[in-house]
Amino acid sequence: MNYREESLKRHEAWRGKIEIIPRVEVDSREKLSLAYTPGVAEPCMAIHNDPEKSFTLTRRWNTVPVITDGTAVLGLGDIGPEAGMPVMEGKCALFKAFGDVDAYPLCIRSKDTEEIIKNIELLAGSFGGINLEDIAAPRCFEIERRLKEDLDIPVFHDDQHGTAIVTAAALSNALKLVGKKREDIVVALNGAGAAGIAIANFLLKSGVKDVILCDSKGIICEGDLKLNPVKAEIAKRTNRNHLTGGLENAMKGADVFVGVSVANCVSEDMVRSMKDGAIVFTCANPTPEIARDKALHAGAAVVGTGSSENPNQINNVLVFPGLFRGALDARATTVNFEMMFAASEAIASCVSQKELNADYILPYAYDKRAHDAVAKAVFEAAKKTGVIRK
Amino acid sequence: MNYREESLKRHEAWRGKIEIIPRVEVDSREKLSLAYTPGVAEPCMAIHNDPEKSFTLTRRWNTVPVITDGTAVLGLGDIGPEAGMPVMEGKCALFKAFGDVDAYPLCIRSKDTEEIIKNIELLAGSFGGINLEDIAAPRCFEIERRLKEDLDIPVFHDDQHGTAIVTAAALSNALKLVGKKREDIVVALNGAGAAGIAIANFLLKSGVKDVILCDSKGIICEGDLKLNPVKAEIAKRTNRNHLTGGLENAMKGADVFVGVSVANCVSEDMVRSMKDGAIVFTCANPTPEIARDKALHAGAAVVGTGSSENPNQINNVLVFPGLFRGALDARATTVNFEMMFAASEAIASCVSQKELNADYILPYAYDKRAHDAVAKAVFEAAKKTGVIRK
Repeated sequence: MNYREESLKRHEAWRGKIEIIPRVEVDSREKLSLAYTPGVAEPCMAIHNDPEKSFTLTRRWNTVPVITDGTAVLGLGDIGPEAGMPVMEGKCALFKAFGDVDAYPLCIRSKDTEEIIKNIELLAGSFGGINLEDIAAPRCFEIERRLKEDLDIPVFHDDQHGTAIVTAAALSNALKLVGKKREDIVVALNGAGAAGIAIANFLLKSGVKDVILCDSKGIICEGDLKLNPVKAEIAKRTNRNHLTGGLENAMKGADVFVGVSVANCVSEDMVRSMKDGAIVFTCANPTPEIARDKALHAGAAVVGTGSSENPNQINNVLVFPGLFRGALDARATTVNFEMMFAASEAIASCVSQKELNADYILPYAYDKRAHDAVAKAVFEAAKKTGVIRK
Repeated sequence: MNYREESLKRHEAWRGKIEIIPRVEVDSREKLSLAYTPGVAEPCMAIHNDPEKSFTLTRRWNTVPVITDGTAVLGLGDIGPEAGMPVMEGKCALFKAFGDVDAYPLCIRSKDTEEIIKNIELLAGSFGGINLEDIAAPRCFEIERRLKEDLDIPVFHDDQHGTAIVTAAALSNALKLVGKKREDIVVALNGAGAAGIAIANFLLKSGVKDVILCDSKGIICEGDLKLNPVKAEIAKRTNRNHLTGGLENAMKGADVFVGVSVANCVSEDMVRSMKDGAIVFTCANPTPEIARDKALHAGAAVVGTGSSENPNQINNVLVFPGLFRGALDARATTVNFEMMFAASEAIASCVSQKELNADYILPYAYDKRAHDAVAKAVFEAAKKTGVIRK
């Protein structure tokens, strides 16, 4: 099937992938008086007297907007806020189907960091959490950082952390297959946008010691004055052997390649130059850094991609529904690393030792058990780390 | 039943009066590939190439936010954005139940006119129309005016125009009962906030010649330098006999009293001072300007109130679901007077000549026929006046 062509036809027929329905009846005088005026004055005053009650007397406890400025939509780039909406709506459908979260798509007609922050902060009282989506780097880092600082609800930029969490889950299981440990590996990571930076941070925090991060110009080196502040900061913690040059230098002798970059930038020779038991995650969409069969042909032991057409799809659909379900149920005030790491391990644990093989390192995106496991793990991590409303 | 007490209990049990559901299935690889990646790239690009397609390929065509700053919620006043949410959610439930509109509640943490305008304009690409709600006067006038000027989707402040439309519908039928014509009557109108100003404008535009508008200080007179700009403007078109003094002077000899003001500000004597066949609409909530039985005792021929406990509830629930249904179906770019007048006449026409009596001048708020009639009338008026997307 030509998914893109068929998808357009379906979207024309669907006329929207989500819908808002009442949870109350209003078809009599009495019902109207309870759900609306005059009765509704009482819950209003209860919230006025204690704003925390907005989490019990309205849908706020279960409500998350999926917010974009339309500047980094899929691999399509800056296509505009309205054009991002089919993705946002799709995400909202997934939020409900897999996490029972009421998610609502919002697109913002601005590319100004301060305007976007202000816009979201003014609306924050309507929501139990905030999911940022498809906002271009480096703007997305500042937006998320400031919102996390200012708001007392979970804020999560899925393109960063969703991708990092699921990549780490895939890596965790792939390492079991090749008999290596996180602490011992070298990871060559191509792409220093939202996803690349977040994956680097996540791997470093979760025990990987040596990450070599590359952008379109090659290996990112500490001290390079042309780096933006985000890259300059991470340069201090990556590339511990001070390698220079292109991606081919980063991959030489590496145990793992992770690509969140562009099509066809990795050759078979570059895969051949990796250590034995090479793990290759080529997540560029729709065309990967190297095709799966080529990577296998060049000796990769485990290959994951961003595509649902292949085994081992590294898809953040596995993350966000359960992560927000757990965070909302815990009444979390933030999303911290412990919650994200718990989500990652929960995803990995959904593939049993018996099932685990080079073509099955991750549960399927539509596996409800995985979403439930993520929710439970995130809930417990939030409780354990105490980042919950009083 | 004590509606307020019972309503609080129900809200605790409901935990939200609306919910967001998927309209697509996502429980297989193929379904995910069509509703989400990779297929979704195609509708995204279609909208990128022609932003008007956001009205056919996403839910935008049927989507309206109910937006408040929480400064004029019911009769409760400035109770804060979060505290306004039970009303907004209730309204969203009514939007769907009576108009099949997907409405979403948003509260804005700001009382700054410019900030609120900016906030809504940045989000406008997400919606097919905008319903403003419970925003205090005079700020609400400027916010609505500017949004209507800047946006190409219908913008409607329900507290103003919803109230005006249903009040005019009630008046239309009440006049039939007392055998008077719009052109000949004097209307004493108490309350010069959002609703009062809008009712005055609406009645004047629909043929009433003499409206005497009062605020808390008495009759509003042209030339009074202490009036805010909105009142100063309407002073030029109201009070054509240049009356002065309090509300009692306005009501003396008037045919109609409309109150959108405060509890108990009208005495039986004031009603007695009106012309024969007096029409008295006392819409202050929860306690009216004068109790219905007192107004009847003082000789009023027809009495309407804001309460569902009495006959003739003048309730804008009769307006907004059908009005937006019609506007969205017509793909209207605005809401003009013709559409609002059509809505008003449609509501009035739902009470047949045979049914019409002093205790039944309006259809019930939950009468689906009324909502359908409003939708049809607004749709036709939008088409007729040509305020529709190409």
